[in-house]
Amino acid sequence: MSFAATILTLYPEMFPGPLGTSLAGRALAEGKWVCDPIQIRDFATDKHRSVDDTPAGGGAGMVMRADVLARAVDHALEKRPDAPLLAMTPRGRPLTQARVRELAAGPGVTILCGRFEGIDERLFEARPIEPVSIGDYILSGGEMAALVTLDACIRLLPGVMGAASSGDEESFESGLLEYPHYTRPPEWEGRTIPEVLRSGDHAKIEAWRKTMAENDTRLRRPDLWERHEGARDQSPSGARRQKKER
Amino acid sequence: MSFAATILTLYPEMFPGPLGTSLAGRALAEGKWVCDPIQIRDFATDKHRSVDDTPAGGGAGMVMRADVLARAVDHALEKRPDAPLLAMTPRGRPLTQARVRELAAGPGVTILCGRFEGIDERLFEARPIEPVSIGDYILSGGEMAALVTLDACIRLLPGVMGAASSGDEESFESGLLEYPHYTRPPEWEGRTIPEVLRSGDHAKIEAWRKTMAENDTRLRRPDLWERHEGARDQSPSGARRQKKER
Repeated sequence: MSFAATILTLYPEMFPGPLGTSLAGRALAEGKWVCDPIQIRDFATDKHRSVDDTPAGGGAGMVMRADVLARAVDHALEKRPDAPLLAMTPRGRPLTQARVRELAAGPGVTILCGRFEGIDERLFEARPIEPVSIGDYILSGGEMAALVTLDACIRLLPGVMGAASSGDEESFESGLLEYPHYTRPPEWEGRTIPEVLRSGDHAKIEAWRKTMAENDTRLRRPDLWERHEGARDQSPSGARRQKKER
Repeated sequence: MSFAATILTLYPEMFPGPLGTSLAGRALAEGKWVCDPIQIRDFATDKHRSVDDTPAGGGAGMVMRADVLARAVDHALEKRPDAPLLAMTPRGRPLTQARVRELAAGPGVTILCGRFEGIDERLFEARPIEPVSIGDYILSGGEMAALVTLDACIRLLPGVMGAASSGDEESFESGLLEYPHYTRPPEWEGRTIPEVLRSGDHAKIEAWRKTMAENDTRLRRPDLWERHEGARDQSPSGARRQKKER
């Protein structure tokens, strides 16, 4: 079964877009996933096909109507009842690699792309929608966030990356940033590759990479480091380690 | 002067891609920004035009070579000496709306897109590169992250959004999530718009929106809330408020 990417959007022409190139593009051509953009405007009922209206209480911009979106969402839920339904919004839960893994292991994902000032809040109360944010910045719409979410999922689908890159050692997979990489030339502009990486001693290399990943996470992302340490302290092995250290 | 978006990539055909549509597409057509993708492979020197090699110390995948990337980066730095140089990498500093505002206020941005396992770390030591991450998940390459960064910047360029949506009340601009939105119909599936928004009392509406933004941030994003409260306590007005509360 192909991974089904269903996108509810005012800009269906944006899909597959950059996902038609490179890794994701090849996987699309091979049928490893299907791209099904759906025009929200098709679910409007007035002659102007309007999907938005002015915000209740006043303010700038326009708000996407709950009634029109609900019809689009219901259509998608009927078409793909097993796929989780996400809405890209800065008010959503931050996307994580763990959630990406879950999504990629499932039958597909349906993504509602917000535009304008946002979506009528009643939609989130009335339908099983998971609000998701890709980061703490504002985009012109949910489409770019949907492309990011799909790209993250598609590369994890079976056979897409190939056996060479399983992704197991990547950033965030262990709750840490990934260790730094080096390649040829061994010397460049007077800078050499760290000695240990040329030692051929695999245990030493692994230990060095672990230390570097921990150091870089602590320095660059104290927030990730705290969560990582918190999780470790909660786990049985973490508790054991703590005890031993005392 | 147009905002200059220079992208160093192995997939120049991905640009402007989705940024050629909608708001950003119109701004591009109007010359409010220029899109200049540069093929990294053009800076390779061997007959295979190779840009990557196996990781020092072993491991899966390939690493992008510092020498080839440095030539591409130097070319871009010469072409756009005033533009900040970003590299999209999960090891980078998380992108924020504050950084987006700074970038959008400048002459443009040059973005190096990583691929494969990553970039030879020596490049970051040898060139003035700001490593940036759009979120804690892994993409197939930096291109999608560059599109996101550019989209966030372009909508803030003068004249792109229009006067109606200044963006001042959006999520993150105040360090909080944005308040929930509602629009017509006033009743939908038995759900009504909150009474206060139909009161016409602008002071009450503003107060309600502020409370909602604070409540939602505290509930959904305790991390943002903590930072927001921390910043308030540091500020002179925050200190005053604290004092008064005691």
